Amino acid sequence: MKTYYAVIFISTLYERTDEYEDMAKRMEQLAEQQPGYLGLDSVRSEIGITVSYWEDLNAIRNWKSNIDHLNVQRIGKEKWYRSYKVRICRVEKEYFFENNK
Amino acid sequence: MKTYYAVIFISTLYERTDEYEDMAKRMEQLAEQQPGYLGLDSVRSEIGITVSYWEDLNAIRNWKSNIDHLNVQRIGKEKWYRSYKVRICRVEKEYFFENNK
Repeated sequence: MKTYYAVIFISTLYERTDEYEDMAKRMEQLAEQQPGYLGLDSVRSEIGITVSYWEDLNAIRNWKSNIDHLNVQRIGKEKWYRSYKVRICRVEKEYFFENNK
Repeated sequence: MKTYYAVIFISTLYERTDEYEDMAKRMEQLAEQQPGYLGLDSVRSEIGITVSYWEDLNAIRNWKSNIDHLNVQRIGKEKWYRSYKVRICRVEKEYFFENNK
């Protein structure tokens, strides 16, 4: 397995608004255009967990400092997020299961 | 930061039943009793993402081979899960944000 990285972003919101959802969708589309982006899994109910996958740490750094993303990070801290946790991880092992029944 | 590990478990279900929810709750309680367990974040809507945190790879191996957990893994594959992905990751960096407004 070729090593790659995961960013685990866990957040709680003040309120789940359309404005927030639009921004999240836009950020997803923006991330897709970043060099080294590999994919994303995301779900929100009581909390939100988004895991994005990247080729290397440099790709993550570039995404973190993308100018539109920086702007949204600022607004997010001011307005949307009650709290969040970010963990940057090296994926060491993986296995997948698909049911064929 | 002391290195630790995260297991990212992403799954889709055939159906979200009470039986499934009970099992998930029981597994959470069982994990808490495992040596090297550090915590867990979990959410389900269209998909489920559960991230559990562990002191080292050995703690993850022990949890994977816990006899009650093995039993649930078997039933899960037969009955509950349409698909799942497991990724075992080393957490290299983390930062947290709490809004004080």
